[in-house]
Amino acid sequence: MVATITKPITLEQFLQNPETEPASEYIDQQITQKTIPKGRHSRLQSKICQEINQVSETPKIAYAFPELRCTFDGRSIVPDIAVFLWQNIPFLENGEIPDNFDLTPDWIIEILSPDQNAHKVIGKILHSLRHGTKLGWFLDPSDRSILIFLPEQQPLLMANSDTLPVLDPVSLKLTVEDTFNWLKMS
Amino acid sequence: MVATITKPITLEQFLQNPETEPASEYIDQQITQKTIPKGRHSRLQSKICQEINQVSETPKIAYAFPELRCTFDGRSIVPDIAVFLWQNIPFLENGEIPDNFDLTPDWIIEILSPDQNAHKVIGKILHSLRHGTKLGWFLDPSDRSILIFLPEQQPLLMANSDTLPVLDPVSLKLTVEDTFNWLKMS
Repeated sequence: MVATITKPITLEQFLQNPETEPASEYIDQQITQKTIPKGRHSRLQSKICQEINQVSETPKIAYAFPELRCTFDGRSIVPDIAVFLWQNIPFLENGEIPDNFDLTPDWIIEILSPDQNAHKVIGKILHSLRHGTKLGWFLDPSDRSILIFLPEQQPLLMANSDTLPVLDPVSLKLTVEDTFNWLKMS
Repeated sequence: MVATITKPITLEQFLQNPETEPASEYIDQQITQKTIPKGRHSRLQSKICQEINQVSETPKIAYAFPELRCTFDGRSIVPDIAVFLWQNIPFLENGEIPDNFDLTPDWIIEILSPDQNAHKVIGKILHSLRHGTKLGWFLDPSDRSILIFLPEQQPLLMANSDTLPVLDPVSLKLTVEDTFNWLKMS
């Protein structure tokens, strides 16, 4: 066995590295690469984005971005879905979307992959909540349940016909069942 | 494929069934069997019990029970470790320990096994906290981190040299590192 000594790098150095596929994240001076998304993850990610954006884009309420790098408080994370209230999106002067989002998402949505570590994902969500995120969803497709995180509150484990809380004022009514039923496509 | 139709059974019926090995739990009218504990789980479970009991048994402050069935609020769960304050242990008239604990543990400790579902474990801890449990630890040996649950509060993800909160007035000073260092035995 060969021990590799890796020098801790700074956030600035990390951000100068080319993007990897899947994306890498910088948390507590450590770089970890996200897991390669599989079928269920991909389906839920795209469908949830679509549902949120369908009701939120035209009235300029909010927008859900898949795999968007968000850099804040010395960390650089790439949530599965980062939802921003419209007024918080850092549009460029020409109205276009910037490449860098140096702020906390208003709503963070993570979907557990089979090989992923739940504690690590929860750590990411809790850290975001401590820095301004108003709502976190953590979906486990295998358990058909969703952990709901709200600032300074005990999380809730929702299942079956429980109605999911959404970011105010996004007008979306969804139960846990509705969400996982999207996995059934044929 | 044969679909098996299982009639939901009541808590009373469940409790009349013989105990299984590993133990079965009754949650939301469903029976699930705990996973077979592996090396790391076994070591952490026994060592944590030992450390708590070493400081708490003689002064009659509290006692940590491994794999104790606790039945309350229509559920029957078997936490990896259930800690009770001494005055809450339902001793029999002759001073002996009863077989049935129809109450919530004061402190619940769960250790994630490789095949176990983290959402299910968190659901158990959150439910206990809503019914009187004052502290929950959820250890993930793979991540070397511990999620800390306190009533009506945001959980904390602790790692490295973070000092773990313990049940008041148990006098135990432990960091996350100390705890996972017990895995190193030789």
